[in-house]
Amino acid sequence: NPVRTADSDDGQCHTKDGKSIYIVSDGTGWTAEHSVGAALGQFDHCLVDHACSVNTHLFSGVDDIERLIEVVRQAAKEGAMLVYTLADPSMADAARKACQVWGVPCIDVLGPIIEAIASHLGVSPSGLPRGAGGINFLSEDYFQRIEAIEFTIKHDDGALPQNLHKADIVLTGVSRTGKTPLSIYLSQKGYKVANVPIVMGVELPKTLFEIDPDKVFALIIDPVVLQTIRKSRAKTLGIAEDEMHNYSQMGYVKKELDNAGKIFAKNPSWPVIEVTSKAIEETAAVILRMYHDKKQRRSLPSVSKRY
Amino acid sequence: NPVRTADSDDGQCHTKDGKSIYIVSDGTGWTAEHSVGAALGQFDHCLVDHACSVNTHLFSGVDDIERLIEVVRQAAKEGAMLVYTLADPSMADAARKACQVWGVPCIDVLGPIIEAIASHLGVSPSGLPRGAGGINFLSEDYFQRIEAIEFTIKHDDGALPQNLHKADIVLTGVSRTGKTPLSIYLSQKGYKVANVPIVMGVELPKTLFEIDPDKVFALIIDPVVLQTIRKSRAKTLGIAEDEMHNYSQMGYVKKELDNAGKIFAKNPSWPVIEVTSKAIEETAAVILRMYHDKKQRRSLPSVSKRY
Ligand SMILES: Nc1ncnc2c1ncn2[C@@H]1O[C@H](COP(=O)(O)O)[C@@H](O)[C@H]1O
Ligand SMILES: Nc1ncnc2c1ncn2[C@@H]1O[C@H](COP(=O)(O)O)[C@@H](O)[C@H]1O
Ligand SMILES: [Mg+2]
Ligand SMILES: [Mg+2]
Repeated sequence: NPVRTADSDDGQCHTKDGKSIYIVSDGTGWTAEHSVGAALGQFDHCLVDHACSVNTHLFSGVDDIERLIEVVRQAAKEGAMLVYTLADPSMADAARKACQVWGVPCIDVLGPIIEAIASHLGVSPSGLPRGAGGINFLSEDYFQRIEAIEFTIKHDDGALPQNLHKADIVLTGVSRTGKTPLSIYLSQKGYKVANVPIVMGVELPKTLFEIDPDKVFALIIDPVVLQTIRKSRAKTLGIAEDEMHNYSQMGYVKKELDNAGKIFAKNPSWPVIEVTSKAIEETAAVILRMYHDKKQRRSLPSVSKRY
Repeated sequence: NPVRTADSDDGQCHTKDGKSIYIVSDGTGWTAEHSVGAALGQFDHCLVDHACSVNTHLFSGVDDIERLIEVVRQAAKEGAMLVYTLADPSMADAARKACQVWGVPCIDVLGPIIEAIASHLGVSPSGLPRGAGGINFLSEDYFQRIEAIEFTIKHDDGALPQNLHKADIVLTGVSRTGKTPLSIYLSQKGYKVANVPIVMGVELPKTLFEIDPDKVFALIIDPVVLQTIRKSRAKTLGIAEDEMHNYSQMGYVKKELDNAGKIFAKNPSWPVIEVTSKAIEETAAVILRMYHDKKQRRSLPSVSKRY
């Protein structure tokens, strides 16, 4: 079953414990969910040890007043707060007013940003929810991003090393440094990523040393943390201790990291990224900052996009 | 080169044209970037035909006052606005004040949400940026999500059909209905996804009809749009017209969709999802809403999580 779900099959887990946050969007709800997730990071000190707990309920595609009001009413019943993104000003208004009437604390996630951008650009917002414009999603961007994802899947785990020159970014490191999820994360941002595992006794593809070293990123990790990750992986895969050979044995883990370190030392233009205690998206941010910095060489490195 | 980048190798594209939005975070910046991206959707009417244009510049990992002030000063020089997420209240304060001094329009993306959640929970926010707590990212969630991604990569495009019963979600449809990017998108949310292509003349795996039909989702698409997508793909892959056989020919496209439609009609418990003119994340939202609805059977379907 997927992560952190608060579903229960009997359909009555709602108020069992913890506070609730209702998330409402006329679109997918991913923007508000992302914001709530980051905001909840500020309460880790009480969430981690379950001193407090929070259930979020995401209502997507709420594009009519009736359903909106029903959700607010349910929020009131449950003592939940409401976090919403509603493009149509009359819907946003209705949400605010209904929350006021029923005493539901509420927050408009995008309203203030949209307003600020409107006055910055000198253009009024459309007020149309996503999809309402029948928008040209078949843009070049769209195809490029899909191509990046497909490229990345095909070039996972050292596959097709003859294509490394076609990648935007090449990741390398020992097993369980997060190359695969990191590659996928970056591919969704439109980068073609290949990753090359470093395994003792297995020769690295020659192409890794022939391509532009500016696009290669080397991953390192603390041996103790790596061992923990490998042990957990072994358990997940249901591998018995003795079948594991020395995959997660400290001596072997250290030798492997040593071996990787030597390869990195011989290729000093590859930035070495420390992934210990970094979430995938954090490592991705570090890599993209360096990647774009190498291209731009500005005093203030940034990742830039044109809309 | 990746999508929508505004980099230029000479490092001076900044003010060439369009308005700028500076995005600043003490973390990755992905939250603020996501919000800005969604907010800009409200200005598609002027962005699409380049009546206006916007450059965003993302500054991640801004965790000291000096760098913060430098970014604000640069924003002032360029006539940019500032969108920020800064967990440390003294940093957020400094951003607001510096913006005031230099006349930079600015928006705190998460401040209001964090404040509202704080009073909802009756707990003060930590004020610590992400990563500062050396947080236990090696949680069960973390491993589960990575496992989902790896499962999904391995079960792309009909691979390992004997494992379909292990998937949380199984997608099926003809070529170029977006099964792969959709699978990957869902996997990053922690769902193990397998996708099974429907190709005329190729038998579908028996397991598709043996597994719980509640987790199978059928994708359909308008034939004209599908043809457009296939033509674009053929170009991307550099396939010559005559090598394409009938992959993107309207007669064939329609026959294929017909064939798929018949299979779907024979399996009426598979929801049929129309993907035409939906972005990947929109289709994902629809699927997850239905997926959780089937499990919950509540009056107001939502996707729920526990923190
Ligand atoms: N491309 C877009 N065009 C117009 N509005 C959008 C677009 N993308 C997102 N939005 C709006 O931004 C808010 C957040 O979107 P979502 O993340 O899909 O919930 C919703 O109110 C959407 O209607
Ligand atoms: N797990 C977390 N713990 C504490 N703060 C977080 C967490 N995740 C995100 N934040 C904060 O939320 C804001 C947005 O994060 P980001 O998306 O990484 O830019 C930043 O101010 C981060 O410091
Ligand atoms: Mg891997
Ligand atoms: Mg595919």
